[in-house]
Amino acid sequence: MLFAVKMDVALPTDMDAQLRADTLAREKAYSQELQKAGEWRHIWRCAGQYSNLSIFDVASNDRLHEILWNLPLFPYMTIEVSPLAQHPSDIAVSDS
Amino acid sequence: MLFAVKMDVALPTDMDAQLRADTLAREKAYSQELQKAGEWRHIWRCAGQYSNLSIFDVASNDRLHEILWNLPLFPYMTIEVSPLAQHPSDIAVSDS
Amino acid sequence: MLFAVKMDVALPTDMDAQLRADTLAREKAYSQELQKAGEWRHIWRCAGQYSNLSIFDVASNDRLHEILWNLPLFPYMTIEVSPLAQHPSDIAVSDS
Amino acid sequence: MLFAVKMDVALPTDMDAQLRADTLAREKAYSQELQKAGEWRHIWRCAGQYSNLSIFDVASNDRLHEILWNLPLFPYMTIEVSPLAQHPSDIAVSDS
Amino acid sequence: MLFAVKMDVALPTDMDAQLRADTLAREKAYSQELQKAGEWRHIWRCAGQYSNLSIFDVASNDRLHEILWNLPLFPYMTIEVSPLAQHPSDIAVSDS
Amino acid sequence: MLFAVKMDVALPTDMDAQLRADTLAREKAYSQELQKAGEWRHIWRCAGQYSNLSIFDVASNDRLHEILWNLPLFPYMTIEVSPLAQHPSDIAVSDS
Amino acid sequence: MLFAVKMDVALPTDMDAQLRADTLAREKAYSQELQKAGEWRHIWRCAGQYSNLSIFDVASNDRLHEILWNLPLFPYMTIEVSPLAQHPSDIAVSDS
Amino acid sequence: MLFAVKMDVALPTDMDAQLRADTLAREKAYSQELQKAGEWRHIWRCAGQYSNLSIFDVASNDRLHEILWNLPLFPYMTIEVSPLAQHPSDIAVSDS
Amino acid sequence: MLFAVKMDVALPTDMDAQLRADTLAREKAYSQELQKAGEWRHIWRCAGQYSNLSIFDVASNDRLHEILWNLPLFPYMTIEVSPLAQHPSDIAVSDS
Amino acid sequence: MLFAVKMDVALPTDMDAQLRADTLAREKAYSQELQKAGEWRHIWRCAGQYSNLSIFDVASNDRLHEILWNLPLFPYMTIEVSPLAQHPSDIAVSDS
Repeated sequence: MLFAVKMDVALPTDMDAQLRADTLAREKAYSQELQKAGEWRHIWRCAGQYSNLSIFDVASNDRLHEILWNLPLFPYMTIEVSPLAQHPSDIAVSDS
Repeated sequence: MLFAVKMDVALPTDMDAQLRADTLAREKAYSQELQKAGEWRHIWRCAGQYSNLSIFDVASNDRLHEILWNLPLFPYMTIEVSPLAQHPSDIAVSDS
Repeated sequence: MLFAVKMDVALPTDMDAQLRADTLAREKAYSQELQKAGEWRHIWRCAGQYSNLSIFDVASNDRLHEILWNLPLFPYMTIEVSPLAQHPSDIAVSDS
Repeated sequence: MLFAVKMDVALPTDMDAQLRADTLAREKAYSQELQKAGEWRHIWRCAGQYSNLSIFDVASNDRLHEILWNLPLFPYMTIEVSPLAQHPSDIAVSDS
Repeated sequence: MLFAVKMDVALPTDMDAQLRADTLAREKAYSQELQKAGEWRHIWRCAGQYSNLSIFDVASNDRLHEILWNLPLFPYMTIEVSPLAQHPSDIAVSDS
Repeated sequence: MLFAVKMDVALPTDMDAQLRADTLAREKAYSQELQKAGEWRHIWRCAGQYSNLSIFDVASNDRLHEILWNLPLFPYMTIEVSPLAQHPSDIAVSDS
Repeated sequence: MLFAVKMDVALPTDMDAQLRADTLAREKAYSQELQKAGEWRHIWRCAGQYSNLSIFDVASNDRLHEILWNLPLFPYMTIEVSPLAQHPSDIAVSDS
Repeated sequence: MLFAVKMDVALPTDMDAQLRADTLAREKAYSQELQKAGEWRHIWRCAGQYSNLSIFDVASNDRLHEILWNLPLFPYMTIEVSPLAQHPSDIAVSDS
Repeated sequence: MLFAVKMDVALPTDMDAQLRADTLAREKAYSQELQKAGEWRHIWRCAGQYSNLSIFDVASNDRLHEILWNLPLFPYMTIEVSPLAQHPSDIAVSDS
Repeated sequence: MLFAVKMDVALPTDMDAQLRADTLAREKAYSQELQKAGEWRHIWRCAGQYSNLSIFDVASNDRLHEILWNLPLFPYMTIEVSPLAQHPSDIAVSDS
């Protein structure tokens, strides 16, 4: 089941440098593990912004929440979730 | 070059039934042609809304505009465009 | 899988009376059928507004979209969808 | 009398760990006590957000305010209240 | 139980003159009947706008909805409802 | 001359406890003095929010500003002012 | 007593030409009569928009409403009212 | 004196085809005349939208308003105006 | 050339008292100097808010920016600028 | 490929003076280097605001993001990006 997720990051400008570096490293590792597992299908940077647009493919709303809640950057993020469905014009699902 | 495009459709409730059917058929054919050509990479329905979220892969802003401007449903759409860049955590572009 | 759905209805003030009555009757029958089937778990009127707040329990985003897209009032509605997950304080899912 | 209440939580990222743990424990106990008493009818997590959607069944606006004002997390919350009424299509209240 | 209700009226500029006059007369009579009965406690015009701010004193959310839903101008209104509670500084309810 | 005033209060979560208690006590005394004098006609709590809706009856815009500017909580408030006029359906001012 | 009033005009693009010309002529005469009487102190066009920013000097909220309600363009306007007070830095009212 | 102007166009979907063609032709001629005269310095299409972003270089606010007010598409446009000033980092105006 | 400027002030609640007093004194002197020079034509307090609405009469956008940028309170302000033009109904500029 | 970019700057009012001066000097140098290289085509100050409107001419979305992400003021900015295309009325690209 697919979800589009927009994540906006706002790190405090006076954040401790070590905490910042550690958090970003853990975020990257966490994201890549889920990408390899197939649940985090796409991640794109929104040009000019500290934001990403991602596509998740998960078994349930509960699993989606579990993934997002445990993001190392979660306390610094504003997150918007859009549940996606098949589009009738999608050539992958249409016979016309 | 990737762009996320959100399209919200608002057809008049008193739209002529034949015009409506023709426009929707042309929209589907137009979309599928571009999907097959590889410029319209993804199209998803936003659950519960007459909207889609699409990912385009085009050579330029001008080409993106040309594609969207010629959508048969363009006069009935509100469109939001977000230019996308590679994300440093993307496993497709990262070596970590 | 649970979703909160807010539906705002805007009927044209000059809508044909028979069309209006028929559409409302079909909407009610459609809603009650889904309530009886257990997919439309709650429906409440938002006091003072031509709106409802509903809770759906469905198997997937695709099924949710199918239900909402086929609402007889869909062409007259603005719909907002919020995917819900279990809350750790919910006594139904917590042992504390 | 039913109310839908949306609660968004924003804890300071530098909040004292002990204060945070204590506040969350008190919040959970407070919520579960009211759930058992029947006034806090539902609590759902909004997927991907530090937010919940709840349904309260209380005797009056004053009682609703008393409950919300005394939430241990109240100083960290943004709260939106929607009074609910019976919907004519609700199978629990309709004979059609 | 008190509620603040803001009503914004938008009559079509091409509304039939007789229908308009009849609707406004019925609205006035309906409002005054409820004012005399004590449920519609205050009605003020918002200066410079086709809007009013009203205070209702009703037994329940259901009664509030019933009153508002049956306003002759309801199909032309945008309505915002705010449930009110006693304020601790109110001299009518405070002993300090 | 009547004005509706919505006041939203946002106290810092780390505010000094004594300063907070003093400020709230002064706010209450200040409000009650003006209520007794007849200029602050109504004060209601907005259910579930640290906000009030108040009705003032003052001689001028300048007097209204003087009252609000001197609220002990003014530096912590977001304030919205709506000038009110007599409504033609008000039974207190209508002979129909 | 001063008020800033922003008026945005939206005439239907298919408005009858004679009705339009008559309404605009009546609006201009009405405005100029009030300017000469001293109640409509300033009127400026907002550059690039079918809008004006005006300053009124009236005896009361009720008089302000009466003036605005009777604008020939009132049914086509969105109006925003801001009550003004003396500013302590105004050289006309300050001795510093 | 420079101004950034964003123009969003919304033509009625049932607009008369001849009127539409004539209006668009007049708009293009009008714009190009002002471009050649040097007052309309830049015009860009906002990708995916029936909108443009333009830069004007005019002698005064009054001249800017005169130009925009007389756009053949003005009745169908929403216009946003931003006055521009020299930026201290602009290499055309900086010696550093 | 006229501009309407809305300035909203947000001083930190923990601002140093001496810095605050000095900044406010400098702001007042600065404003009054420009009022006497004729460039700052009007300044009004928005009732109930730490805001003012001002009218400036300056030679250019650059001069307007220079004035506002050098306001002692500029770092604490949110500023909105609206370029104004003559209104055809203004009796000062109309012969009808 | 052209992009309009709006950058709003919000420096903390208690920012270290040396850090502030250094950051601004680096920002200016960085901007001017890109202007000289031809990628940062225009930069204008938005009158009365700590904001600029800029036009970039870059090879790709990725290059645009790289430029903006490395702005010394990036952590203090809110940035809005609008991809631009050729406008059919532009005399530089039109033969009519």
